[in-house]
Amino acid sequence: MYLTQGLHRTVQQTPDLPATIFGDRTRTWADSARRVARFAGALRALGVGSGDRVGILANNSDIYHEYMLAVPWADAVLTPANTRWSAAEIAFSLQDSDTRVLLVDDAFVPMLPRLHAEAPVLRTVIYIGDGSAPDGALDLEELIAGHDPIPDARRGGDSLAGVYYTGGTTGKPKGVMLSHLNLLTSALGATASGTFMVPGGRLLHAAPMFHLADGAAWVARTSVGGTHVIVPGFTPAGVADAIERHRVTDVLLVPTMVQMLVDSPDTADSDLSSLCNLIYGASPISEALLERAGKRMPTAAFTQAYGMTELSPVATLLSPGDHGVAGLRRSAGRAAPHAEVRIVDDEDREVPNGTVGEIVCRGSHVMLGYWNRPEETEAALRGGWMHTGDGGYLDDDGYLFVVDRIKDMIVSGGENVYSVEVENALGKHPSVASCAVIGVPDEDWGERVHAVVVLTGDTSPTAEDLRAHVKEHIAGYKAPRTVEFVDSLPLSGAGKILKRDLRARYWGEGARNVH
Amino acid sequence: MYLTQGLHRTVQQTPDLPATIFGDRTRTWADSARRVARFAGALRALGVGSGDRVGILANNSDIYHEYMLAVPWADAVLTPANTRWSAAEIAFSLQDSDTRVLLVDDAFVPMLPRLHAEAPVLRTVIYIGDGSAPDGALDLEELIAGHDPIPDARRGGDSLAGVYYTGGTTGKPKGVMLSHLNLLTSALGATASGTFMVPGGRLLHAAPMFHLADGAAWVARTSVGGTHVIVPGFTPAGVADAIERHRVTDVLLVPTMVQMLVDSPDTADSDLSSLCNLIYGASPISEALLERAGKRMPTAAFTQAYGMTELSPVATLLSPGDHGVAGLRRSAGRAAPHAEVRIVDDEDREVPNGTVGEIVCRGSHVMLGYWNRPEETEAALRGGWMHTGDGGYLDDDGYLFVVDRIKDMIVSGGENVYSVEVENALGKHPSVASCAVIGVPDEDWGERVHAVVVLTGDTSPTAEDLRAHVKEHIAGYKAPRTVEFVDSLPLSGAGKILKRDLRARYWGEGARNVH
Repeated sequence: MYLTQGLHRTVQQTPDLPATIFGDRTRTWADSARRVARFAGALRALGVGSGDRVGILANNSDIYHEYMLAVPWADAVLTPANTRWSAAEIAFSLQDSDTRVLLVDDAFVPMLPRLHAEAPVLRTVIYIGDGSAPDGALDLEELIAGHDPIPDARRGGDSLAGVYYTGGTTGKPKGVMLSHLNLLTSALGATASGTFMVPGGRLLHAAPMFHLADGAAWVARTSVGGTHVIVPGFTPAGVADAIERHRVTDVLLVPTMVQMLVDSPDTADSDLSSLCNLIYGASPISEALLERAGKRMPTAAFTQAYGMTELSPVATLLSPGDHGVAGLRRSAGRAAPHAEVRIVDDEDREVPNGTVGEIVCRGSHVMLGYWNRPEETEAALRGGWMHTGDGGYLDDDGYLFVVDRIKDMIVSGGENVYSVEVENALGKHPSVASCAVIGVPDEDWGERVHAVVVLTGDTSPTAEDLRAHVKEHIAGYKAPRTVEFVDSLPLSGAGKILKRDLRARYWGEGARNVH
Repeated sequence: MYLTQGLHRTVQQTPDLPATIFGDRTRTWADSARRVARFAGALRALGVGSGDRVGILANNSDIYHEYMLAVPWADAVLTPANTRWSAAEIAFSLQDSDTRVLLVDDAFVPMLPRLHAEAPVLRTVIYIGDGSAPDGALDLEELIAGHDPIPDARRGGDSLAGVYYTGGTTGKPKGVMLSHLNLLTSALGATASGTFMVPGGRLLHAAPMFHLADGAAWVARTSVGGTHVIVPGFTPAGVADAIERHRVTDVLLVPTMVQMLVDSPDTADSDLSSLCNLIYGASPISEALLERAGKRMPTAAFTQAYGMTELSPVATLLSPGDHGVAGLRRSAGRAAPHAEVRIVDDEDREVPNGTVGEIVCRGSHVMLGYWNRPEETEAALRGGWMHTGDGGYLDDDGYLFVVDRIKDMIVSGGENVYSVEVENALGKHPSVASCAVIGVPDEDWGERVHAVVVLTGDTSPTAEDLRAHVKEHIAGYKAPRTVEFVDSLPLSGAGKILKRDLRARYWGEGARNVH
């Protein structure tokens, strides 16, 4: 299996069908193939060799789709940058993955000087915006026009397809290495479940394409054919308008986006009746929201996907039918057709149904490993199973309930925030003596980043002062939305902060059902 | 991916759902798993090691299902024998694949002495019939009762899953080596097309389970969950009765079976309204039959699958919707979501649409190679593409039309017959001077094995004499149904028999559309 396989198939079967619709620009699959083969030729001419990494730092566009195909066509490896990260984090991921060629759109041109300064490995910048290329950057359209097509390398199977950076428990981003087989296994397996992609339909990309939730939907849609409808980013009106105008059949959203789409006054008059499948994941959805969403989009079958980048990303699916059963709506669903899921204790022994343990997963969708991190790879994949770091239990019908994150991670508005990253940034403020960062329930964001802070007493910074300080170091969405000042933190006998006690004030004493 | 993955998933999700229904015997998925783990323990105790081959020579049954799971569970490799072959052919395949352990049911016990004589490698026979084990054979039920369960080896990925024997152009059967990844890629890809397996439904096994057409449907159904309804072999009444009694949703048949099911007076009163998907393949279906079948089974969506054992086996699918277009009903459909298909000339260059060439295929479903035949493997897989030996062309929408078999093969009633095998057997008769064997159109069988024979003139054997002679050497279904005696065969300047000229009398001058 190889990512470009779907391109060959769609060109053979539906050459004149739109491959991408982006604003007023529509390109057919035949157009796509012609551009991709020349784009790949340009990459080769720029010195990109077999297995070299090629990055992209851009909002969603039809170029993103072409990038996903041209890079493997040229026998190279994808490194899509997280657009919500700070320049320091992005530079780290570029430098860490030895990414020498980077595509950049207008939104991220201003970040270039800092990236060059902090990621000296970066050599070639390809501009994919609407204006003129900035100094020192090459223009993609000129590259495509100026290079001959090359034959597809058909890079595939177990070879590296992409390095996807995620936040890490150590506070530094980690590159997740995924093979072509990994990505296509998850995509075909999820599609085989029957409620993922309408054959020949139209998929809307509203969630960021750098993220594998949307990326996996792109792989699935490209595999079964059809059309990608792309908006630069999520806005309620933009999404509702795109669904109506282009008769979108499938969409992937995080619950925060579902909420905004359903509740925004800007979308009240839009016709959403073309929707067949709405896939959501990455964070919990409330019963009340599910009910409002079902009323607003009655033609859409709701499927929840649970997984993580390391699983390419799908592990379990909650089917549309399951949503009709009250007790199952808090579940993350059951193992997808390509995945095996089980719950284990601290010594990797399987535990009985109903017992909480760590969720582990096995199958051809499990990552190759972490880029240049053999020890973390070995720990995560020990015994042949991917250890998710999430706590959960299975019921007697195989439904997974995620109850806690062993990895101390917060999922806010669909984005993962590792507490340790925020704590590290907070700790750099001279007035912070100690702190703990936890997720607390939030109506809009599912979870909210919340900091509990002990001050040194020398000065009295406000919550806003601390937020501003954190944003200098890490992405804005990771900064605490709320800050609580306390005299001391609850500590264990060994001096470890008892986050469980802090969380209990917000979540109650029982297990925390986040899905 | 691994074959036992589906077993773990179904036990987790639907432990009490019937896994198999065979006659009056129903076993749940939990039963299946318990028996499989002990069955595997018995194989291990019998000395079956990692990668060893374990064969089965039996009609369809629920034991066949358990065999498909217990062998990989024990880290071993499947070698299902073709029940329609002669003892000599089966013995050859056992000896060639070094299969030392063989499961045998009542129907094939009488063949054992000859198998032992011609396949001395055969060491252990496991009896799976309803009576008492014959002398020297072990009883499966005693083995299962007498051995503890062992943990699943989870043999998978690129490791060998099975060796499937097919007739060969050289006249000797060849073992097709398929990996777990091969088998699961085809199954998940075909299922992702959306018209292959009703989620949670009931699949009827009426075609022989040794054959990968049915074997692949077994993999797909096991992957998405549901129930296997199994009959020992195809009879119109047996199939109609099983569909009605067990509310079967999916069935795989060859067109000859479709014809018998539809036209038999024994099935006229049966309720077939539970059928959702009817998958057919392996030989052509006529417009008239398709129409009769559609009337008799109005709830069933018809999908045609084209492929071969070497492709695990699915390459293309003709969707139910395509069947509504008159010009497409003679097509074999379009590349499935997991496959890339193209047409090439003698030098492996891609040819334009509409031009006949050899059908080649690429993807993770392409076999590992032929068992112990590196040269034939290299020839078949040259350039990374499986060369099918079938001639065909693509239209501008990617529909494949199979027009000729480059490999000189006849498909009769769903079985492949290589002309050279029949010619070799005929040539051993002392009165046959020369002969040519071709496929000719046949109302019941799609194609019929037809021999054109030049006699030496010493004696005058009848057609029936020659048929009886052939059956001494090869399987009965390969014997010519009709024989034509001629004074001479048309020869090329180089002295090669011009089969094209012989075929033209039956098929007309134009290209032969067999699908």
